[in-house]
Amino acid sequence: MPQKEFRVGMIGYGFMGRAHTNAYKQVGQFFPSGYKVVLKAACARDAAKGKAFADQWGYESVETDWRKLVGRADIDAVDICTPNNLHKEIALAAAAAGKMILCEKPLAMTTAEGREMVAAVEKAGVPNMVWYNYRRIPAVTLAKRIVDEGRLGKVFHYRAKFLQDWTIKADLPQGGQGLWRLDVAAAGSGVSGDLLAHCIDTAIWLNGRMETVCGMTETFVKERPHQLTGKVEPVGIDDACTFMGRFANGSLANFESTRYARGHKALYTFEINGENMSLFWDLHDLHRLQVFDYKEEGKTRGWKSVHVTDNSPDHPYMAKWWVPGLAIGYDASFTHQVADFLQGLETGQPAGPTFRDALETQAVLDAVLDSAKSGKWVNVAKT
Amino acid sequence: MPQKEFRVGMIGYGFMGRAHTNAYKQVGQFFPSGYKVVLKAACARDAAKGKAFADQWGYESVETDWRKLVGRADIDAVDICTPNNLHKEIALAAAAAGKMILCEKPLAMTTAEGREMVAAVEKAGVPNMVWYNYRRIPAVTLAKRIVDEGRLGKVFHYRAKFLQDWTIKADLPQGGQGLWRLDVAAAGSGVSGDLLAHCIDTAIWLNGRMETVCGMTETFVKERPHQLTGKVEPVGIDDACTFMGRFANGSLANFESTRYARGHKALYTFEINGENMSLFWDLHDLHRLQVFDYKEEGKTRGWKSVHVTDNSPDHPYMAKWWVPGLAIGYDASFTHQVADFLQGLETGQPAGPTFRDALETQAVLDAVLDSAKSGKWVNVAKT
Amino acid sequence: MPQKEFRVGMIGYGFMGRAHTNAYKQVGQFFPSGYKVVLKAACARDAAKGKAFADQWGYESVETDWRKLVGRADIDAVDICTPNNLHKEIALAAAAAGKMILCEKPLAMTTAEGREMVAAVEKAGVPNMVWYNYRRIPAVTLAKRIVDEGRLGKVFHYRAKFLQDWTIKADLPQGGQGLWRLDVAAAGSGVSGDLLAHCIDTAIWLNGRMETVCGMTETFVKERPHQLTGKVEPVGIDDACTFMGRFANGSLANFESTRYARGHKALYTFEINGENMSLFWDLHDLHRLQVFDYKEEGKTRGWKSVHVTDNSPDHPYMAKWWVPGLAIGYDASFTHQVADFLQGLETGQPAGPTFRDALETQAVLDAVLDSAKSGKWVNVAKT
Amino acid sequence: MPQKEFRVGMIGYGFMGRAHTNAYKQVGQFFPSGYKVVLKAACARDAAKGKAFADQWGYESVETDWRKLVGRADIDAVDICTPNNLHKEIALAAAAAGKMILCEKPLAMTTAEGREMVAAVEKAGVPNMVWYNYRRIPAVTLAKRIVDEGRLGKVFHYRAKFLQDWTIKADLPQGGQGLWRLDVAAAGSGVSGDLLAHCIDTAIWLNGRMETVCGMTETFVKERPHQLTGKVEPVGIDDACTFMGRFANGSLANFESTRYARGHKALYTFEINGENMSLFWDLHDLHRLQVFDYKEEGKTRGWKSVHVTDNSPDHPYMAKWWVPGLAIGYDASFTHQVADFLQGLETGQPAGPTFRDALETQAVLDAVLDSAKSGKWVNVAKT
Repeated sequence: MPQKEFRVGMIGYGFMGRAHTNAYKQVGQFFPSGYKVVLKAACARDAAKGKAFADQWGYESVETDWRKLVGRADIDAVDICTPNNLHKEIALAAAAAGKMILCEKPLAMTTAEGREMVAAVEKAGVPNMVWYNYRRIPAVTLAKRIVDEGRLGKVFHYRAKFLQDWTIKADLPQGGQGLWRLDVAAAGSGVSGDLLAHCIDTAIWLNGRMETVCGMTETFVKERPHQLTGKVEPVGIDDACTFMGRFANGSLANFESTRYARGHKALYTFEINGENMSLFWDLHDLHRLQVFDYKEEGKTRGWKSVHVTDNSPDHPYMAKWWVPGLAIGYDASFTHQVADFLQGLETGQPAGPTFRDALETQAVLDAVLDSAKSGKWVNVAKT
Repeated sequence: MPQKEFRVGMIGYGFMGRAHTNAYKQVGQFFPSGYKVVLKAACARDAAKGKAFADQWGYESVETDWRKLVGRADIDAVDICTPNNLHKEIALAAAAAGKMILCEKPLAMTTAEGREMVAAVEKAGVPNMVWYNYRRIPAVTLAKRIVDEGRLGKVFHYRAKFLQDWTIKADLPQGGQGLWRLDVAAAGSGVSGDLLAHCIDTAIWLNGRMETVCGMTETFVKERPHQLTGKVEPVGIDDACTFMGRFANGSLANFESTRYARGHKALYTFEINGENMSLFWDLHDLHRLQVFDYKEEGKTRGWKSVHVTDNSPDHPYMAKWWVPGLAIGYDASFTHQVADFLQGLETGQPAGPTFRDALETQAVLDAVLDSAKSGKWVNVAKT
Repeated sequence: MPQKEFRVGMIGYGFMGRAHTNAYKQVGQFFPSGYKVVLKAACARDAAKGKAFADQWGYESVETDWRKLVGRADIDAVDICTPNNLHKEIALAAAAAGKMILCEKPLAMTTAEGREMVAAVEKAGVPNMVWYNYRRIPAVTLAKRIVDEGRLGKVFHYRAKFLQDWTIKADLPQGGQGLWRLDVAAAGSGVSGDLLAHCIDTAIWLNGRMETVCGMTETFVKERPHQLTGKVEPVGIDDACTFMGRFANGSLANFESTRYARGHKALYTFEINGENMSLFWDLHDLHRLQVFDYKEEGKTRGWKSVHVTDNSPDHPYMAKWWVPGLAIGYDASFTHQVADFLQGLETGQPAGPTFRDALETQAVLDAVLDSAKSGKWVNVAKT
Repeated sequence: MPQKEFRVGMIGYGFMGRAHTNAYKQVGQFFPSGYKVVLKAACARDAAKGKAFADQWGYESVETDWRKLVGRADIDAVDICTPNNLHKEIALAAAAAGKMILCEKPLAMTTAEGREMVAAVEKAGVPNMVWYNYRRIPAVTLAKRIVDEGRLGKVFHYRAKFLQDWTIKADLPQGGQGLWRLDVAAAGSGVSGDLLAHCIDTAIWLNGRMETVCGMTETFVKERPHQLTGKVEPVGIDDACTFMGRFANGSLANFESTRYARGHKALYTFEINGENMSLFWDLHDLHRLQVFDYKEEGKTRGWKSVHVTDNSPDHPYMAKWWVPGLAIGYDASFTHQVADFLQGLETGQPAGPTFRDALETQAVLDAVLDSAKSGKWVNVAKT
């Protein structure tokens, strides 16, 4: 089948720049489609760094000004891998230029920013997506399928945690190379936008709209040196954020995230308890879904550890990889997301989460942070 | 060594009546002391049931009126295993009669009731204890020792859950035989007093005072038939209760309990995250403590699954049982509690939790339920 | 119901003496029957130790000569808790005296001894049983029920391990107080008779006769001081024993035991792989049975962790204990065994394993040790 | 740095052809070196299939005759991904042509074949390697580092299993597309060469030479249809293979592999028990190493679950991937192997296992299969 080119312009070259690029390179081998991904250009403010990245990862050219990249005629899609404070501006420009946009999460710094971005892509009519990649871990996708089959019955509880421990060191700088997530100016918030955003995206996908929340935040280390200036300044981000809430379907929410849970590297877990079935997942063992099915006979009823690695249609995406029992990595979730995005282009059924989908997560985040400030329950804004 | 008699009068003959009695019978074999426990009398309103219980478990006599039992001269200690709504009245009478009192948890229906009880036992000067038995699961006791050694460093987070699923069935009656925990008149509250009470007691023991909380409750099944009358009536208890909070040591609290978490029988778990160490325990595998020690070398750092079954002083209580690897049951926690109570009598260092200790849990429960009603943060009353 | 007395004479007062006695004391409370257990006499060569044991555990009297105990008219059942080298002699005498016999495992030092014992009890017509207590851990009993329902289909594999690490220390004495298991004169063999015996008993019970075996043994520490004499002498026991084999049903056997597996306290595990179902159990988490059911739908097929703690007929024995989720201990397996023995007396259907049942295990052990000596496959003798 | 080309000729396009190719494509991004991998040619007997594979995976050209590929001047390295029965012939030709050789495991059908191959590459002086990829799962590499530090002390036991269940279906054909592993003519043996080979390679690497073995095999399904002819023919492979043995260091071996262990997809596990430390690994959770360190304090001693995902030098290879907690897949082990092979070219320290290393595994396999036939212990031939 003759393939159409899908020419990518990548802005940013950090952790996510690498993860997305690996996906662009793998997608053709594992999920061949009518599109051939071409790594057209990479953009970095620092020309040398941009060049090194492009050389190592196979981009054809380099830009140092994202506006130039966005303006190039030979780019079909712009991938935004910058710190959060640039998402909006770049997305608006890219939409105006008629580019498809794949934006790293969270969509924006605030719901207000997000609304502008949604308006822009919808007005421009450009395909768009936000990289909430965990939806496409096969075990998580399987959870979604099970939920969609209606097998859980009435849902009572949804709980999620994202626990890390990498910022406990009090002398860790805020801001700078690899550390912009600690800098409120660049990140907008702390664990809420970084970690809870993932939890909320999955939750809405699996369990529907959240209506009302009550949250709390804490900043354990109050001052940190800035990496670039060396100056010790107040820390503006939330180190930990916990919230309770209610979903539209009547179930209760319990969410928590922190970077101060000693012993946990990236412990994203969720659990959903329905009348007939419960599901549990844990990023630390990402290839397993835990399933409890109350409809099974009592004698041997228990939590099933499903190793989601069968190369059959039973296990999402896995027929394209290896043989049963052989796990794929975290990175594959990005490959799946590109595959689905391209498939969406072909079928006209856009892969989610779109900017509009991701706006809902933004609204929950805003409500949680408002509540943490006011000490009161807050309704989540309709999007 | 010549033994002194410790003559028990047991009020109630249900689940807890059996658990406590098994402990009274085992304590002399596994934890011999200067006291010999004598099962003097059991009390039940229904004479036949009382007789059957006494015969099966070896009580010397039976009473049908708890006031008579409390008044007997040949009773040293009264064990209160009734529904919660009788705790106060019995305790007050027993204190007035100069009896030692071992009261099933929660101490009382409310903090106010609890204060009266504390005042009564302290005025009477009688030894007293509340059966928060989980403190004496060896893995939990080991956690306490580790905390007391100061090895955790600054604590950031404490989280606990107690998840069950036994009341999901909508036609389960409220009240009646074995079901008084569903009857607000007898129980005072639902999962908060029944399950969260355990979580809070352990938390205060391990992590100190809680200062402020914000909670929510839900009653999923709004009406149930009463077992005795058959009448369908509004349900007064909380089916689920979640709360956030702050401890006096600056750490954050996240607590949840429910009887609607399909797949969990009695999943009481707690986790405490300190700067240098984290601990995790799970009642479903009660003989294990999970320990993460950041001070270990990085290469092999991980969560250690400590099988707390060594018959050495390293593992609390276990030197008195079997050999390494052989687990004791839930029931042994009560045996340990009796052993410690008796030791407290000998040493003059009373075993906790005393009524006064348990009052703190009551104050947290009241604050949580107040907060759930008002939708606001509530300060925990000083006790 | 009027109860008949079941008067026990206990010979031995060590680990097993305590475990059995605890069971005799608990059985009436948890598994009431037509029999009332009476602890009539305890026997120990050392009068003071015998007296102390009897006082602590509630035996009415003490003997220092087991022949006298066996001859007492007020004893119905003799419980043999001595080192292995005395089993035969006592059992023969007890059978001759018309006593019921409950003998600690392994039945005997050799198959030849075992045959004499079987002949004796069968000639005397006395009820008899061997304390292979693991059959009565609820999770193990549940495994048996599932096997008996024919749900596994054709069985391909049975594997079992019993791994410990308590004798690695080279200066641990052989023989003496609490150490007779290291003394070949008292124990007959090492891990084979001590640990593999359990594995083999369960295996035969679940999977039928073993026909042929090929084994190896190793003694890692070649000489040890004897505790009593202080003399350093060659070690006669096997420190480790591994064997392969074939069952009569065509499945393959893989068994291993050792006291040199650092990190394992009493890791008895077994797994059985059938065409349609597999089962796995682990003594370190004795309340769980792992079940894989191939007949379940592919999408959510996985190993189920069944927490065998429901107080319902679904879970063997558990209806008599607590509520779902609350585990019983290792010790309860003995209580169950007494309960079943007494029930066997009432129904006339003797509880297994009888001496005759246990003889099969002895024959496998002999074949394994023969094979380890000869380096050849050995057929298991018919019993 | 100017890069030298490393031009690959790939023979075969199945499961392993894909796995190796993915590695060749990833290595430059994650493990940049002085070599630039060029996918020069792919070889398949079926021209159309070869073309499709080359197109999808990016090979520049296609051959249908492996002799032609081996003879091409623009190929530096030949990768042998054919069924086992072609390994020798191709390797001999490639060595003669002066090509580097990367050969899929097992090295050969027999030790005799393997010796010829070793002689050929050593005579030709060409770099060579066998794809025992599991050595380069980070958790396994970490195990090797720990062993090499001497921290285990005297080793007592090494046990390994590789359990699968995919051939239980009696009507599964032998031979044909994707099924050559069931065809003795193509595979040489069954689970021994396919699965045990991995276990043995790791074992020798971690624990040294195996000296003597005693094995058994079984073929559960005696006849199967051949996929291509449809004829039902006797099955020549071993469906299951178990063996015991002794290592040169005095430790005992217990190995088992099967494709009839219902519930296990690719359960490769190994455990090594040393005097001071034990290690355990499980392919189903490949990113974790279980470590028991006896030298830690008794109170909190336990099996540590090390999540080998830190992006630090502590965890082999992981500094090149993502951030802590984010697992890489099975596939990454191949990427690491290519990286190490290229590094070996640069440093002159060849990466293992070389053909000579892999010959040892072959010798153990031969001894095991001989033993299974003769029913006797067999010494492993010196290589």
